[in-house]
Formats: sequence, C-alpha cells, structure tokens
Amino acid sequence: MNIKPLGDRVIIEVLESDEKTKSGLYLPDTAKEKPQEGKVMAVGPGRSLESGKVIPPQVKAGDRVIFGKYTGDEIKVGDKEYLIIRESDILGVVKSA
Amino acid sequence: MNIKPLGDRVIIEVLESDEKTKSGLYLPDTAKEKPQEGKVMAVGPGRSLESGKVIPPQVKAGDRVIFGKYTGDEIKVGDKEYLIIRESDILGVVKSA
Amino acid sequence: MNIKPLGDRVIIEVLESDEKTKSGLYLPDTAKEKPQEGKVMAVGPGRSLESGKVIPPQVKAGDRVIFGKYTGDEIKVGDKEYLIIRESDILGVVKSA
Amino acid sequence: MNIKPLGDRVIIEVLESDEKTKSGLYLPDTAKEKPQEGKVMAVGPGRSLESGKVIPPQVKAGDRVIFGKYTGDEIKVGDKEYLIIRESDILGVVKSA
Amino acid sequence: MNIKPLGDRVIIEVLESDEKTKSGLYLPDTAKEKPQEGKVMAVGPGRSLESGKVIPPQVKAGDRVIFGKYTGDEIKVGDKEYLIIRESDILGVVKSA
Amino acid sequence: MNIKPLGDRVIIEVLESDEKTKSGLYLPDTAKEKPQEGKVMAVGPGRSLESGKVIPPQVKAGDRVIFGKYTGDEIKVGDKEYLIIRESDILGVVKSA
Amino acid sequence: MNIKPLGDRVIIEVLESDEKTKSGLYLPDTAKEKPQEGKVMAVGPGRSLESGKVIPPQVKAGDRVIFGKYTGDEIKVGDKEYLIIRESDILGVVKSA
Repeated sequence: MNIKPLGDRVIIEVLESDEKTKSGLYLPDTAKEKPQEGKVMAVGPGRSLESGKVIPPQVKAGDRVIFGKYTGDEIKVGDKEYLIIRESDILGVVKSA
Repeated sequence: MNIKPLGDRVIIEVLESDEKTKSGLYLPDTAKEKPQEGKVMAVGPGRSLESGKVIPPQVKAGDRVIFGKYTGDEIKVGDKEYLIIRESDILGVVKSA
Repeated sequence: MNIKPLGDRVIIEVLESDEKTKSGLYLPDTAKEKPQEGKVMAVGPGRSLESGKVIPPQVKAGDRVIFGKYTGDEIKVGDKEYLIIRESDILGVVKSA
Repeated sequence: MNIKPLGDRVIIEVLESDEKTKSGLYLPDTAKEKPQEGKVMAVGPGRSLESGKVIPPQVKAGDRVIFGKYTGDEIKVGDKEYLIIRESDILGVVKSA
Repeated sequence: MNIKPLGDRVIIEVLESDEKTKSGLYLPDTAKEKPQEGKVMAVGPGRSLESGKVIPPQVKAGDRVIFGKYTGDEIKVGDKEYLIIRESDILGVVKSA
Repeated sequence: MNIKPLGDRVIIEVLESDEKTKSGLYLPDTAKEKPQEGKVMAVGPGRSLESGKVIPPQVKAGDRVIFGKYTGDEIKVGDKEYLIIRESDILGVVKSA
Repeated sequence: MNIKPLGDRVIIEVLESDEKTKSGLYLPDTAKEKPQEGKVMAVGPGRSLESGKVIPPQVKAGDRVIFGKYTGDEIKVGDKEYLIIRESDILGVVKSA
C-alpha cells in the first residue's frame, strides 16, 4: 500500500462473500444498507483533539473490520480497489477464531 | 460473539415477544416507533471525550436493555442476527426481578 | 418500576386530567402542542459532561413535573404506560401545596 | 406560582396593552413577529455550563421583560395563563421609571 | 432609553439617509440586503463564555455602527422605534471625523 | 477608511481585472463561483476564542488577498464600494513580486 | 507560487492521468465522485485550535496527495490552474516509490 491516510482515516480492502465465510460472519446482500466486512490496509496517525493531542487509531493494518456500506471514498491502486473511510465509521473488529 | 465493537458501540440481540414476558415488559407492536427490548452481547471500550479520556459503558454483556426501534446497523453472525447500536441510544436497563 | 434509565433520562407516568385538579394546574387539551403534567417514576445517574463529570438530575422519583407533549419514547410495563424523556425536556417542577 | 422552572427557564405572565402604557413601552400588534412584554413570575436555578458551574439568571421575579412573541410553552395555573421560556429568549429588562 | 438589553444584545436607533450624509457613509437603498447604519442606544453586559466569564461589548452607547439590514427585533418606546440586535451582527463602527 | 470592523471582520476593496495583471493572478470571469482578488483596507481586532483570548488577524491593511466571490456585505463610503468579510473567508494572500 | 494560503488551506496542482501512472495510482474517470490526485504547491500555517494553538499541516510542498474531487476553490495564476482546499479534505499522501 503506497498511500498513507491522513488524520483518523483508514484504508480498507473490501472482502467478498467467499472470504467472509471463514470468520463466520455473513452479511446478507439483499438489504442494501447492511454493513460490510473488510481488511484494514493502512491507518492514519489518528484523530486530533481540540487540545492538540492525537488519539491513535484503535485498529491496525491486518484487522478485519465491519463498517457501514456507503461510507468513504473509493480509490484504485494498480488494479485493486480500496476504500478510504474514517475510523469512526468502523462498527467493530472481527476477532480471529 | 466474535465481534468487538469500537468506541461507544454495543452489540444487541433483539428479544422477541415471548421472551419479554418474563421481565414483565411489554412493548406493543402496533406502534411502529415504540422502543425494543434486547440483550447486550458485547460492549466497546466506551466514548472518547475531547480531553482524551474514555468513559466506560454503563451497560455490560448480559444486561437487558430498551432502545429505539430503528436505531443501529443489523449484522448476521452464523445464523443469528444482531444490532450494533450506540450506547447513547439505550434508553434504560431492565432490572432482574 | 423495574427499569433504570440511562444518562439524563427520566421515566414519567403521565397524569390524566382528574389528577391534575389537585395541583391546581390545568393544561387545556384543545391545543395539541401544550405541555403535559406527569409524575417522575425513576431517574438516570445524570448528564455526562465533556470533562467526565456527571451532573445529577434536578428531579427525583415522586416529583410532579411539566414537560413538552410530544417528547420521549412510550413504553409499557405490565399494563401501565410510561414515557422515557430527557431531563432537559422537563420545563418545571410542580411544588406540593 | 406553584411551579419551579428547571435550568435556565423562566415563567412569564404576558402583559396586555393596557398595562404596557405605564412603562412607556408600546409594542404594535400589527406586525405578528414583534416582541412582547411580560412580568417574570419565577426563575430556574440558571444555565449549566460544560464545566459543571451554573450561571444564575440575570432576571428575577417581578422584573418586566421583553421577549420574542412566539417563544416558549403556554401553561395554565388555575385560571391564569403563563409562558415558560428560556432566559436567553429575553431581549431586555424594562427599567422602572 | 428605559430598556436594559440582556447578554450580548444592543439597542440601535436606525439612522435615516439624511443623517448618514454627515459620516460620509452612503448605503444605497436599491439592494435590499445591504447593511444599515445606526446609533447604539444601550448595550448589555456582554457575551457569556462557557468558562463563565463575560466578554464586555466592543461598542458603547453613542457609537455609530453598521449592521445587517434584516437582523434583530423591532421595539417601540414612546413614539420611537428601535432594534434589539446581537453585538455579533454589528459589522463595524463608524469613526467620527 | 472611516469604518473600524468588529471581531474577525476585514474591509476589502475589490480589484478589477486590470489591476490583477500586475500580480500575475488571473481569475477567469466565466465561472461565476470563482474567487476574487482584493485589497485589505481595514481589519478588526481578531477572533474571540471561548477562553476569552483574541487571535489577531493574519492579514493587514494593504495586503492583496483572494476570497470567495459571494461572501460578505457590500457597503459604500463616499463613492467607493467595499466588502466587509470575515477573515476566515480569505483563502490566501498574494505575495508581492 | 506567489500565493500564501491562510489557516489550514493548501494549494494543489491537479495531476492529469498521464502523471498518475508513475505513482501506480489510477483513479478511474467514469465515476464522477471519485477522489483526485494532486501535488501540494503551498501550505498555510495550519489549523487554529480554540486554545489559540496552531496545528502545523501534515503535508508539505511537493507531496502527492489524494483529495475529494469537488472540493475547494479554483484559481488561475498566469496560465496554470490550481485548487485551494482545506487540509482536512486531503484523504492521504502518496508515498514515493
């Protein structure tokens, strides 16, 4: 990944249905607004507070995460597509079995 | 539950009408906007304040709670459905008899 | 009352017109947006400030209060209906004669 | 007045045109959005700041005040009507002659 | 002026075109949204900050000021009309020649 | 300039196309929403923070600046037109060659 | 670049498709809302916090960055077009190979 996100942004590789089977998480594709599962590829330095402090992100590269489906900006690096989202749009982390 | 919520999020298993009878709470299904009862399955670390402090959640796994009906994101783990909501959308905790 | 409100929420039993007579307060039912009178059944721990402090509620169980009519969420416990509202939606406390 | 306002709320008795003559203030009734004059009947403890401090109200019972016409909630105590408004909706205090 | 503004409010006497000539300021009346010139008649104690401090107003009675045309509330004292506006709606002070 | 702006306001003389040529900056007039170039005529004391501190402006009288085209209030002093805008609407300062 | 941005603003030269090939980043032009790649030409002093502190920008002149397509104001200096955007609209920095 040759892109470093700024602030509290996170780069996500969206996981397709086949890959989801391993984690036991199934996100039905009938309901359009359902959350999506993805893999964190890179994280920014974190959220800047009004005090000037920076809160480091709670997720790290490699984490499997769930996030709202229509969140973020799509980018394409080489022939792969990614999403840049804010960490606050991540609903939860999938624990490895 | 193999998902760890982030921030002030909480994973809820929605309780059906039969189960509600025990707690004595009845939520009529005629009014669509009425709150729902559910069981807390997992909680995040809590809400981050501007000072950098984190307020731990007031609910814990196992608590029976009431929350607004059309709140949160639905997920499905294996064959069970859950909701991921914010703790601030929980109206109250049902005390065990 | 077997429900404990969270945060700055308060559980209210709405008072009907007959009961209002005692306190001398009369809220005409012609104007739909007029405030309502009710009795506080349970209060949450209070409002959390950004500093992490919690402001305890200014009302307590048993208080008679006035609040905006279309505020809050209705719940039913056994065969009785209640409202869960935020303390900031309470306009005032009716002093006992 | 048997109602104690909460927070930064104030109970106002609206003054009719005849009473306004004394203070020399005349509010023409042709323009619907013009401010109104009234008498403060009761004040709450004041506005709570994020620091937890409470700012006591700048007006007191007995003050004649001007406030925006379509502000606040109407209540009726016995056979008299009052308004509950926020202190921040009071534009100014009429000084006694 | 027998009215004392509250908070950061200011009472303004609107100046008509003739009076404007002296200060050399001309506000064309073709464009409806153009600012207006006026004279400060009374000022409130100032704006309250979240810290509890009060910032005294930057203008004083007697100042000639420019402000947005459709700002504030009109009042009439005796046979004269005034505006009550917020100090933050004053664009600038006209310096005496 | 006989007007002193309040707060973080700045008085601007809008520069016409001929004058722009000197600074090498050209703002095409085809696109209506394009920024404009102007000259700072007067600045206010600066922006007041919640702490009570005042941040002095980053521009001074005489600076050439770029700002959003449909920002601010037009005033006319004698036969010249000016704009009163907020300093935060200034996009950048044109450095002298 | 003879323009100095104010506050947290950044001047960007938008990169065309040919130049993007080097960094391996490809942004398909079919989807109109996709982010764009550009080169930072100048940065402001940074974002002012409520405490009065200034957070210096995380990007510097020469950086390749990704940002939302319909963000910012277009300016033209000589015969070249640039964008003035806020640093918070920059999604990430492209690392040099």
